Parts: sequence; structure tokens; C-alpha cells
Amino acid sequence: MLKRYLPIITWLPHYTRRLAGADLLAGVIVTVMVIPQSLAYAILAGLPAVVGLYASILPLLLYTLLGTSSTLAVGPVAIIALMTGAALSNVAAPGSPEYLEAALVLSLLSGAILTLMGLLRMGFFVNFLSHPVIAGFLSASGILIAASQAAHLLGIEASGHTVMALGLSLVENLAESHWPTVAIGAGSLVFLIAVRKAGKQALMALHLPPALADLLARAGPVAAVVVTTLVTWQFGLAEQGVAVVGEIPRGLPPLTLPGFDASLWSTLLMPAFLISMVGFVESVSMGQMLAAKRRQRISPNQEMIGLGGANLAAAFTAGMPVTGGLSRTVINFESGAQTPMAGLFAAIGIGLVTLALTPWLYHLPIATLAATISVAVLTLVDTATIRQTWRYSRSDFSALAITILLTLLEGVEAGIISGVLLSIALFLYRTSRPHSVLVGRIDGTEHFRNVKRHETETVSHLAMLRIDMSLYFANARYLEDTVYTLVASRPELEHVVLICSAVNLIDASALGSLDAINARLKDSGVTLHLAEVKGPVMDRLKHSDFLDDLSGRVFLSTYAAWQELKRPPDTD
Amino acid sequence: MLKRYLPIITWLPHYTRRLAGADLLAGVIVTVMVIPQSLAYAILAGLPAVVGLYASILPLLLYTLLGTSSTLAVGPVAIIALMTGAALSNVAAPGSPEYLEAALVLSLLSGAILTLMGLLRMGFFVNFLSHPVIAGFLSASGILIAASQAAHLLGIEASGHTVMALGLSLVENLAESHWPTVAIGAGSLVFLIAVRKAGKQALMALHLPPALADLLARAGPVAAVVVTTLVTWQFGLAEQGVAVVGEIPRGLPPLTLPGFDASLWSTLLMPAFLISMVGFVESVSMGQMLAAKRRQRISPNQEMIGLGGANLAAAFTAGMPVTGGLSRTVINFESGAQTPMAGLFAAIGIGLVTLALTPWLYHLPIATLAATISVAVLTLVDTATIRQTWRYSRSDFSALAITILLTLLEGVEAGIISGVLLSIALFLYRTSRPHSVLVGRIDGTEHFRNVKRHETETVSHLAMLRIDMSLYFANARYLEDTVYTLVASRPELEHVVLICSAVNLIDASALGSLDAINARLKDSGVTLHLAEVKGPVMDRLKHSDFLDDLSGRVFLSTYAAWQELKRPPDTD
Repeated sequence: MLKRYLPIITWLPHYTRRLAGADLLAGVIVTVMVIPQSLAYAILAGLPAVVGLYASILPLLLYTLLGTSSTLAVGPVAIIALMTGAALSNVAAPGSPEYLEAALVLSLLSGAILTLMGLLRMGFFVNFLSHPVIAGFLSASGILIAASQAAHLLGIEASGHTVMALGLSLVENLAESHWPTVAIGAGSLVFLIAVRKAGKQALMALHLPPALADLLARAGPVAAVVVTTLVTWQFGLAEQGVAVVGEIPRGLPPLTLPGFDASLWSTLLMPAFLISMVGFVESVSMGQMLAAKRRQRISPNQEMIGLGGANLAAAFTAGMPVTGGLSRTVINFESGAQTPMAGLFAAIGIGLVTLALTPWLYHLPIATLAATISVAVLTLVDTATIRQTWRYSRSDFSALAITILLTLLEGVEAGIISGVLLSIALFLYRTSRPHSVLVGRIDGTEHFRNVKRHETETVSHLAMLRIDMSLYFANARYLEDTVYTLVASRPELEHVVLICSAVNLIDASALGSLDAINARLKDSGVTLHLAEVKGPVMDRLKHSDFLDDLSGRVFLSTYAAWQELKRPPDTD
Repeated sequence: MLKRYLPIITWLPHYTRRLAGADLLAGVIVTVMVIPQSLAYAILAGLPAVVGLYASILPLLLYTLLGTSSTLAVGPVAIIALMTGAALSNVAAPGSPEYLEAALVLSLLSGAILTLMGLLRMGFFVNFLSHPVIAGFLSASGILIAASQAAHLLGIEASGHTVMALGLSLVENLAESHWPTVAIGAGSLVFLIAVRKAGKQALMALHLPPALADLLARAGPVAAVVVTTLVTWQFGLAEQGVAVVGEIPRGLPPLTLPGFDASLWSTLLMPAFLISMVGFVESVSMGQMLAAKRRQRISPNQEMIGLGGANLAAAFTAGMPVTGGLSRTVINFESGAQTPMAGLFAAIGIGLVTLALTPWLYHLPIATLAATISVAVLTLVDTATIRQTWRYSRSDFSALAITILLTLLEGVEAGIISGVLLSIALFLYRTSRPHSVLVGRIDGTEHFRNVKRHETETVSHLAMLRIDMSLYFANARYLEDTVYTLVASRPELEHVVLICSAVNLIDASALGSLDAINARLKDSGVTLHLAEVKGPVMDRLKHSDFLDDLSGRVFLSTYAAWQELKRPPDTD
């Protein structure tokens, strides 16, 4: 029991010096790498930069205790920061104490929702975020984030949580662009894109081993931060109006207690739920992908508890909502992390940074962080999935397209909610018209195939209808309609056989429809039979009167039904 | 084209004197029988009694032109009247001119919604009302209606649209019960119940032919109306405080034009939609049942247009929302109606009544009408379906029970909306954990069965997993999890075969999961194969890169996969 909820009990006793060495190295590398992004995502959420550091200390410790992935690295991530900003700006003004307080409440609610759902084993909830909806949502969010960073790159003000609002306020203030800021922003941007596109190759051309080249290429943001900070400090650019991170209180994160305010909590409940679900999906897919590479597995329900614990920790240590982040996890994995202990080492590292090194971050320009974010979120725009979905299915694509449009035009919450509702509607619509075909016998065999596609043997008083879908309320009446049309169009019909080989489920509505079909066919002098009913479906039917009332029989196979019913009727 | 939208063109040319005779008789019988219920349902909706008559004239003509059922009788019905009253009392005070006006707007919106959905062939929408939800909703509505009529039977005031509100106001005013009214109400009630329970048998004991006995037993409400009206008139009970129908303007229904008021229209849109759907479901199920008895069929989409036309007609002739009514349709059917022309004859009959006979209705006690309604709605309480659903499936029963509870406690709209949402959630939950089993070969055959249920032959490096469900977003990740668990638990595994004989659909999310499974198994050194993929599913997969990327093969049958893969691996 304790082992299930505290996975660390399972792996800690087998922890060795060798594992500790690997984890320590990964922890140090992650510490250095994630400082820029932690600061950047806090700013993206409209919070002071230091909140991103605070959210990367205690939450990591909690995930080490509770998580099941050996490589997942938890902390602030772009998409969650975007959603956090959108939610908080509805309840308070950015920069106000209420805004900071609301961030704690949001973390607390997210943590509570995730923990509760994990304990209740409700991980399946996340399945309602279909792949096209997630791809559309992430792509649109990437664009929204890049648009929101444009203002920082230009040194102007811009606000809003839709492309229209952001675009308008950018255009309005464009004339006020601050040229030193633009220089730093554009320089960082060009440098980061170049490193991303060609950094690894360039370093390998210098005869560095591929793994090291890869790691150094990933350190591009760190290099940009160091160089632009030095430049800004050296030339006193902060005094000339270049926005910088500024003073960060030195020391460990303060303990905080989110206050209770019924109206604030109820307003933030839905955003917290959406943040939890999106964060969990991102985290768990990545966790599964990396676990599979080492033939390990993670437990989705326990992952919910792990992420829930991390968010609760964030709520009590002046943090913001967190989840498993893509780039920090990849760095952790490739730096050779072996157990969740690597997360603890990273937490200690970031803790030391906030204790001692924050003055060094004073002159770090916001424009550099904006450039870091803009380049990072480019990967969210998932053109490959968009293209594949278009090729594979136009209706899935429509869900994706509407999610993108609504996310861009109405904001993140409207976008994801519409996407989920649309996926559900689409699935219900697809299954509401079950594919069913009349089958006939392939001459000389026991095989029965679609009469329209194959040369088959049929008899006029017998119709054999193969149903290619589970029967439930959304398609039950459609089946009725199909059978009635069939019977009305063939006056000589005496037997109808429903072949149920692909029927995995018959719900109470479909049972009602079968009852109705049976009764109405009996009224029209037609006998109803079933064939190839699956075991579990048959077990369920035995809990009803249907089998007693059935005018015909239940045949084990289509062939048995054919053998019995193909003979010319005895009457007349 | 014209034939499709004006079914009368199809049958009118073949109309004969014999058919006309039968329809005329049915029309006369229906006219006499439906007057009490038309008045009663208008009162139930909080409208003047005469509105029920107006709604039984022009709407019937429109249905005759547009409808496809030869026996459906359109007019005010109990459940629609209840929903109308609930919707209207939210926007105006009963008895006010605004209330009457809102009734016209509600008819107009219902008519427009039905016509539009019919033209767009959106009849499938109604499928979201599952059988358990409808059974629960109708049962609860029956109880609500009976509770609302109790006040009329006691001669007191009571208002509210939930059992709590109705119950409280009944108890408050109980002391003011008006004894002459109670006498009339109780007398009518006892008489109507007796006629319903034993009327037919009693009349048959008098050697009347069964058909006539049945018809006369159904005339119970007419007899109650005639007798109590005469008694009230004779003893001047109206002057002693017995509520009566009172003065009804003589003449044909006035032409009305529902005024446009954006806020009123938008408030009534949802109720109009719900009324349309519930009315359509009731009407179309009955139409299909009776059509099947004569081996005819009706067209659900054209039925929407027919009922839409009827409601539009009601909006322009001082009426109220209408649909195909259970009791009036049964009377029409059993009186021998042969074509929709019977509806026209009934419309003419009711028209003549409003022209000439309304003064005769002056002394008709409201208590008698309340008794008529109360007895009629007893049939809505569908204990058989409730019991059957309990036996068949506890989860379907939960949808039914919650629909009943919410309808009773929160009102008709909350009840039906929650029921629909719950059915959908239930279906998604059921399909979110696809049944899948590992299969092995039954010795010496080509059959493969569940390894847990049968003695089967298996090999340790090969897992064959049969998936018993369509794959879509809600269960795609569950499948991933199943496969990863399987692979993690069997280190010797080299091949996984997914048997897709019951997979009717693979949506873009499931395709994404299959891609992920394929890639991750490849990372773990396991080859993925498919078997028995259905034609339409295979066609769709060809629109993706999945088949090119698949590490293994697609086998036509499970046996072919077994033959190919069961051999000990060549390596080591």
C-alpha cells in the first residue's frame, strides 16, 4: 500500500553509488540549463521571474518522493505558464499582490485536483483530450506565446490573451520600440535559432563527441543569458531603458499559505482543472515515451499524485503551477539521469542559486528571456501532425482546425473546451450511423460477405444483416430504421438474421430497440434471429426478457443460421 | 423533390371513396374524444383552455400536407404542455398577455427548429435521448403533472415546477380546499380509473363487440365531461366557487404574429429545442410502432418537417406547441384512420366546435379536466422499463434514476439535460477501457481463444492481443498502457500481434497511439504486427504513414500470423 503511493520506497533501497554519480551529474546540468527557462516562464505567466525559481525547488522534491518516471523533470513549462497567465489576468491585475495570491490558489487547486483524481484512479479523464485537439491546442498556444513575447523583444507594452488583442496592442505601440532592447532581442533570437539549427553539427565539426556537442548546443540559452547579461551590465543598458530581471530577493522560497476566498476559488476551479489535464497529458506522454526507451513503465494514476504533490508544494512555497517539462526532461534523460533522485539534486542546485547567485541575474535582459521562449515554443507548432491529420481524416482535422481557431481568437480556455466537446460530438456522430451490410454466402464455402461487393448466394425470404458497430443509444434508432426499411422494401421477407460478430456492447437503449424490432417484425409476420453474439453481450442479454421474447433463435454462427433458414418456407 | 417534401402528392391521387369513409369516421371520433384533453393540456400549460382547441385545427392541416405517418394525430400533449408551462413561467406571469405571446414565440421557435433540422436531415440528433433517459424523464414528468393537477382537484392554488415547490404550496393551502370542487374532482377521478381498469370488460359483459367496447371505454373522459358539466350547470356550482372553463370566444382561431424580442427569443431557444426533441421522439416512436403494424414506414426527417409545419401553424393561429399525441393517435388508429386525411377531418370537426359549441363548455369544471389529465399521465410512469433497466444494467439505471431525481427536484429542463449528458459520459466511460484479451491457439485448430478461458497453445516470445472495441481518443491511451504493461512484464517478448477483427473505427488519436506503440516497441526491440484488419479500416490506414512505418506486418488472419511467428526466433 505504502509502496504504491510512495514509489521511492521501492527504488531507494537499491540506490547505489554508481546511480548517485549519474544522477548528480544530471542534476547539475539540469540546474544550469533550466534557470533561464524557469525565469522566462514565470514572466510569461505575468509573475516575477523569481517565482519560476521557487517553483523549481520544493515541487521537484515532492515529485522525487511520489513520481514513477525515472527521468521526468518537473517545473514551470511554457503552455502551463500561458494558461496560468490567462486565468490569473481574469481575476487580478498583473503585478498586484492579488495576482501573486491567485497564482498560489491556482497551484493549490491544480495540486488538489490532480492528487484527488490520482487517488480515485481517474486518470482516464485525460483521454478526452484527443490527439488532434492537443496538437491544435499546442500549435495555437505556441503562436499565442510567440505573439506575447514580441512585445518584450521590442521593448514595448502589449497585453491580451487572443491573437487579435495582442496584435492590435502591438501595432498600436510599435512606434515606441526601444532600439537597444530590439538589438538584444534580435541578436539573441538569431543566435538561438542558429544554435538550434546548426549548433550540433558545428560543434561536431570541431571534433567534439556527438553527445557532448548535443548537450552544448542545448546550452545555447545559457550562453545567450550570460553574454547579454554581461553586455547589459558593462554598458549600463538597464539605465538606458532596457528591461531587466532586476532585484531578486536572495534566500530560500518563503512559506506561503493561499488564503480562502470562495468566489476566487470557484472562478479558478475550471482553469485549474484545464491546467491539470493539459499538464498531465504533456507530462505522461513524455514519461511513457522515455520509459519505453528503457523498457520501464510509469503508472498514470500515480503520476497524477506525483504532479499533484508538486503543485501543492508550489502553492506553499510562493510558486506557480508546474508539470513535467519537455525540454528539461530531455536534458535530464540525455544527461544520464537514472532515478528520480536526479530531480532532488536539481532542486538542491536551484535552491543554492536562489540562496547565493540571484544578484548575478539583476542585469539579465527580459528580451533575452523572450527570445529563449519564442525559440522554444516554435516546437509546439506541430505542422507534421496537422498535415497527417488532414490526410487521415477530414472530420478529425475539423476538430483540430476549430481548436486552433478558437484558441487563437477566443483564448486558451475556450479553445480547449470547444475542442474536447467537438471531439466527443464527432465520435458520437460517427458511431450514430452504424455500418451494416447485407451478406450472402460465397458459393461452396461457409463464408458470408457483403452482397454488394461479392458474388454471393442469397434467398429472397431471408435477409442476413451484419452489424459493424457496438449498439448504444446514439445508433439504436438508426438500426431500427435500417431494419424497418429493409422489411418494408421486401414484402416476401420472412426471416431477418442480425449478425453480431462486431457488436461489443448493447446498452439499455439498444436493448429497447431490439425489443421494438422484434415486436414490430412479429407484427409484420417476420421472424428475427441473432447470430454470432459475443460471450459478454450474451451474458448481459440473459439479464433481460429479450431472449425469451425473441421470435426466432440465436445461432452460434452465420452458417448455422443459413443452414437452418435457407430452405423454402414450409407454409404455402 | 416536391414529392419528398410534400408526401400528400404521393397518396392523394390514389385517394378513394372507401378511404375517405374510413378517415371521416376516424376524424369524427377523434374530434369528440380529444376536446377534453385539448382543453386540459392548455390549462396544464398555464394557458386559456381555448388555446388547446386552436392548436388542434390548423396544425393538423399542416401535418396532413407534410406528414408521412398515416395514423399520427397531432395536437397538444401532456408532456409538451408541462414543458411549455415550465418554460413560459420563466419569462412571464401566467394569465398575462406576455405569457400568451411567449407561447406563440415558443411554438414558432419549435416549428423553425424542427423544420430546419428536418431539411438538414438532422433527425439523428434525437438519438441522444437514450431509452433510460426518456423513460426516467416521462415517469418523473407524469408525477410532476399529477402533482400540479392536485391543486385543481382540491380547488386551491398551487404553483411551482418541481415536486418540492408544488408539494409545499399544496400543503400550505390545503386547509382552503373547496369541497364541491373536491367532490367533482374525486368523483371524476374514481369514475375514470374504474372505466380505465374495468370499462372494457364491463361493456363486453353486456355483449358489446370488443372493438366497440374498447372505443366506448376510451370515451370515459367525454362522459365525465358531459356529466359534470350538466351537474355544474344544473346546480349553479360555478356561482358557489367551482372553477369552470368559463367563456370561450366563439369563432375560428384568430391570426397571430409572434413579435420579435431578442432577449425573449434567446431565453426561449433552449426550451424550444428541448420541447422539439422530446416531442419528436414521442411522436416518431409511436409513428414507427403503428406503421410497422401495417408494414408501412415513416421518414423521420420528413416527420420533423411535418411536426415543424404544425408548430409554425400553431404560432400563427393563437396556439401552443404540439406534437403527435399518444392517446389521440391510438384513438385515430383504432377508429380505422387510413391516411393523414383523417387529421384534416378532425381539424374541421374541432373547427366547427370552436365556431358553434364553445358556450356549451362554459360550465365544464376545471377539476374534471384535472382528473382527466391525472389519469392519462399515470401511463407515463413506466415502471416496467425502470425495472427492466435495473435488471439489465446498473449504469444505465443510474442515468435513469438521476434523470428522474433531477426532473422532480430541479424541473424538466435540468432533468432532461442532465440525463443526456450522463448517457454520453456513461458511453464514453464504457468505451474508454476497451476489452482486450490475450489469445492462444486451440490445439489442432485454426481457432484462437482467450488464454484465461480456454486450454490454449502459446509461445513465450509472441503475444497475440485481440481488441474488442473500436479505437478512438477515449480509449487510445488505454490501449497504449495495456501494450506497455504487457511488454514490460514479459522481457522475452519479441512479437506483439494486435487482432483487429472487432475494430470498426480507428480515429486520428488512435492512429497516433498506434504510431507511438509501434515506435516505442521498436525502441524496446519488439516487433508490432496487425491481423484481421477490416476493409474500411485498412482503407483509412492507407491514408497515413502508419503502414510504412510499421515494424512488422499486417496478416489477413490470426492463424497466418501464428504460422509465421510461432517459430523459435532465428537469433540466438
